[in-house]
Amino acid sequence: MTGRPPVVPVQGTTRLYAVLGDPVAQVQAPALMNPVFVELGIDALVVPVHARPHHLETVVRGLQRVENLDGMFVTVPHKAAVRGLADRCGPAVAIAGSANVLRREADGSWLAENFDGSGFVTGLVGAGLDPRGSRAALVGAGGAGSAIAAALLAAGVDRLSLYDTDTAKLTALAARLDGHWPGRVHTLSGPRLRDADLAVNATPLGLRADDPLPFPLQDLAPGCAVADIIMKPRETRLLREAAARGHRIHHGIHMLEGQLNSYRAFFDLR
Amino acid sequence: MTGRPPVVPVQGTTRLYAVLGDPVAQVQAPALMNPVFVELGIDALVVPVHARPHHLETVVRGLQRVENLDGMFVTVPHKAAVRGLADRCGPAVAIAGSANVLRREADGSWLAENFDGSGFVTGLVGAGLDPRGSRAALVGAGGAGSAIAAALLAAGVDRLSLYDTDTAKLTALAARLDGHWPGRVHTLSGPRLRDADLAVNATPLGLRADDPLPFPLQDLAPGCAVADIIMKPRETRLLREAAARGHRIHHGIHMLEGQLNSYRAFFDLR
Repeated sequence: MTGRPPVVPVQGTTRLYAVLGDPVAQVQAPALMNPVFVELGIDALVVPVHARPHHLETVVRGLQRVENLDGMFVTVPHKAAVRGLADRCGPAVAIAGSANVLRREADGSWLAENFDGSGFVTGLVGAGLDPRGSRAALVGAGGAGSAIAAALLAAGVDRLSLYDTDTAKLTALAARLDGHWPGRVHTLSGPRLRDADLAVNATPLGLRADDPLPFPLQDLAPGCAVADIIMKPRETRLLREAAARGHRIHHGIHMLEGQLNSYRAFFDLR
Repeated sequence: MTGRPPVVPVQGTTRLYAVLGDPVAQVQAPALMNPVFVELGIDALVVPVHARPHHLETVVRGLQRVENLDGMFVTVPHKAAVRGLADRCGPAVAIAGSANVLRREADGSWLAENFDGSGFVTGLVGAGLDPRGSRAALVGAGGAGSAIAAALLAAGVDRLSLYDTDTAKLTALAARLDGHWPGRVHTLSGPRLRDADLAVNATPLGLRADDPLPFPLQDLAPGCAVADIIMKPRETRLLREAAARGHRIHHGIHMLEGQLNSYRAFFDLR
């Protein structure tokens, strides 16, 4: 992706996708998806839709009745609220408690899904870090962390160790996950790092240069890969120091790139 | 305009305009307006919005709450119904009984206007056929004809002679026009052509090659200009035969091109 907006054709036959946010100026879905439409020869377009929280229902209800609108991407702060505006929710939504995409089904109903987690896993697999059968440690039980936790379990991690400073949030997530994948989720007073194959930061720590590290690197086994979901800066302090210690690192951008494949599959774009 | 869709940039900051229709595949507003945005360096985009009549209100109410949507273009069959979804209507809407554009005002309310007529007049003036002080004959008292009749009177025609085979529609239009421009509107059992400076076809006659002429050319004075609002075919039988008789002719495309200027002014695009 470059800093220049992608250039796309628009005509009366063009199908639409909305990306809903408040604000919306920062959204990457047009830059991510519109070149895919051009590349695939699909006459479709992602447009930004700025919806205030108190108007979200009115806007979504309207968009759902636009005959040539096939889907919506959903970003901050609408990911939780938009669940209630879908007719059905996919499994990742129930576990993560939030959705980041809606699709018009063949019968005209709307299905919500969440690809934050599967996008992360797709990115891992694409980088040769298939988590199947491995032991993972995840720090951060918020929206993204929850989705990633579920996706890692769905992808077959053997044991997922969870940590968050918000104990109530941590316990609630662990309970939801344990209902689906019993016995594979562990919560501790700190992340269990010593025997992890993969350590993931799903907290905002690292967005700012003076943030503390989300977890201590000296506890990691030498073979442990370290992943961050922060995209800006591309190289967080966590990743920089992990690389210096000889760990394999995995950048935040891969989660977004991994979602591209999920979106293509979800919307049947080919 | 060419047959290829205009190519435009889209990003999170892009402002939106919708063009509402059922169907929508045929709409020309994206092809007309998007190159203007590119030319003016405005980060905005017209997108097609397919709304069924029974969902029009839901769709429009939703679009009105999209913070980065500044306007709507309205086409068949929504021009009459959309009036009731605006907070205020401009003068051309009241007379024509229909709207073809809505604008978000500074206070967040929505204003409806109709530029079918003013677009026609702008096209006339641009072609050197300023109707001020002239005598015009107009055939067709439907949506477009009503708007054109009002615009011709607003532009200062001295006398407007109206004709339509639907006498009730003709009488109702003449009464609305007479309320605004008393004494300048005449309805007859046929259009008064002999002393007209301008004769306008606002009926669908001419869309098909075997249509009869909307009015007889032998009645026209030699200096009378003949205008058609039909765009396809560009050269209707009326225009072809009028040209053969030495009349100056005015093509339907000018009405659309004339609306471009109206839209630019209405939406303050510069």
